[in-house]
Amino acid sequence: MKLVTFIHNGHSRVGAVVDDGVIDCKDDPEIPTVMIDFLAAGESVMNRMRRLVDVAQPKFLLSEMKLAAPVPRPGKYLAIALNYADHIAETGKERPEYPSFFTKQSSCVIGNGDAIHKPKVSDKLDYEGELAFVIGKRCRHVPVDKAHQVIAGFTVANDVSVRDWQARSPTMMIGKSFDSGGPLGPWLVTRDEIADPHNLNLKTWVDDELRQNSNTRHMIFNCYEMVAYLSQAMTLEPGDVISTGTPSGVGVKMQPRGYLKLGQTVRIEIENIGTLSNTVIDEPDNTIIF
Amino acid sequence: MKLVTFIHNGHSRVGAVVDDGVIDCKDDPEIPTVMIDFLAAGESVMNRMRRLVDVAQPKFLLSEMKLAAPVPRPGKYLAIALNYADHIAETGKERPEYPSFFTKQSSCVIGNGDAIHKPKVSDKLDYEGELAFVIGKRCRHVPVDKAHQVIAGFTVANDVSVRDWQARSPTMMIGKSFDSGGPLGPWLVTRDEIADPHNLNLKTWVDDELRQNSNTRHMIFNCYEMVAYLSQAMTLEPGDVISTGTPSGVGVKMQPRGYLKLGQTVRIEIENIGTLSNTVIDEPDNTIIF
Repeated sequence: MKLVTFIHNGHSRVGAVVDDGVIDCKDDPEIPTVMIDFLAAGESVMNRMRRLVDVAQPKFLLSEMKLAAPVPRPGKYLAIALNYADHIAETGKERPEYPSFFTKQSSCVIGNGDAIHKPKVSDKLDYEGELAFVIGKRCRHVPVDKAHQVIAGFTVANDVSVRDWQARSPTMMIGKSFDSGGPLGPWLVTRDEIADPHNLNLKTWVDDELRQNSNTRHMIFNCYEMVAYLSQAMTLEPGDVISTGTPSGVGVKMQPRGYLKLGQTVRIEIENIGTLSNTVIDEPDNTIIF
Repeated sequence: MKLVTFIHNGHSRVGAVVDDGVIDCKDDPEIPTVMIDFLAAGESVMNRMRRLVDVAQPKFLLSEMKLAAPVPRPGKYLAIALNYADHIAETGKERPEYPSFFTKQSSCVIGNGDAIHKPKVSDKLDYEGELAFVIGKRCRHVPVDKAHQVIAGFTVANDVSVRDWQARSPTMMIGKSFDSGGPLGPWLVTRDEIADPHNLNLKTWVDDELRQNSNTRHMIFNCYEMVAYLSQAMTLEPGDVISTGTPSGVGVKMQPRGYLKLGQTVRIEIENIGTLSNTVIDEPDNTIIF
């Protein structure tokens, strides 16, 4: 299934995309309307949704719906640094001995089609196309060979990075957590539909220019190794998002044209998952709140 | 006021400590029972609680109540690295030019009296006594001279650190986010009761040994500068927790006795705020979940 969080009359709820329509989870009152609750409810609710997809009529046209990120407010949003050899080479850094995770604050998450803000405080706005996966089951100390069982599905992430702020601290957090810096979507493709998450083409365009062109097979630490490693330290929970790193071709390494400019659209396509598209605008003045 | 999140009959709710008793927010049905909602409701609800403190009788004895962390699940839990000169000196690192924030995942938060787990995967368990503050108002781009207005109050944090895992990645996140690695409490002292958060004695004991003995006046970046800096990048929200760094005297620099051992109690006392106390136990087997 392609699970979405869609907005209807100001309320967001879970749906499933079928062809050009959206099935509404509300057609079965037993299905939770919030994605984190939906995932936490486990396989029985996932199966109810599958039955709905088989029998229900789509209530909405996809083209007329506003999609939020599939998980609009993940409890954790972790991302791995330096996980593709060609990206490590372009940064001039060393290949890490252990997976190196940083945090994107969940307040930065936006959906497909939402605007990325060029920050008031920086001109060094950059993209990173990434495969992300979403946890479906509360878990800890998961062995690598069971790790696929705790993954609900996959989506596309743009790990938007404000490079000058990122460079100010080795922790990477702040430059990766600017408001609007976490496009996720357009939907969550459930695990059963992805035969091998480690063999998917990944392409990033800025307007019509292809900037990144790789395949998830080039990851250094794969999705299952990430789950195993993280879960030795912390409990992973339904709705947690883990982004798996970016290949080469980021803007900071393509000067002078590399950084994102106003009006440009970043489009990230991952085979069998979907396309995530977001356009850059100036940070509006209504972000000043105190 | 000293605001607490307390557990009663398996439910948690907001209360206020008066002498040796706890006032129950439920005595006024207009007061939200969850701390994040309570803080988000703003000054009018804060004042309702103040009136309750004036007129209501404490319903519970503090000594008989289980307190959770004042904010059991912050939306963001950020902590600043290297913010006391004497701690920078003991680590041998350079004084940062900009504030350097990392994330403690909110899944690591525990309350006063809860056990800190010595992880199955490490023996290098360490403490860091810190003043933490809690955001009371959604805000962004806050100038330094207005920053005090968005702080709801102050609490005590133990930035528990698993040093070998911390050293594996410059991002600091994973070593600081082990389950149970985020003791916070015992309560939130509202801002109006703290004349100057930058002049408070801070002491950390491991059992009866005084390990840290400093004053918050030695912070490099103060609370207001932290709010201003962070909020240039991201929206801060009610219930977000920001921990302000630790002075010298951490265990990793006091070998061989430094690291925490089973049965030891870490007690952190901050003047006018309170004392946070947690004992180390072996990570129990029920943390294996998959």
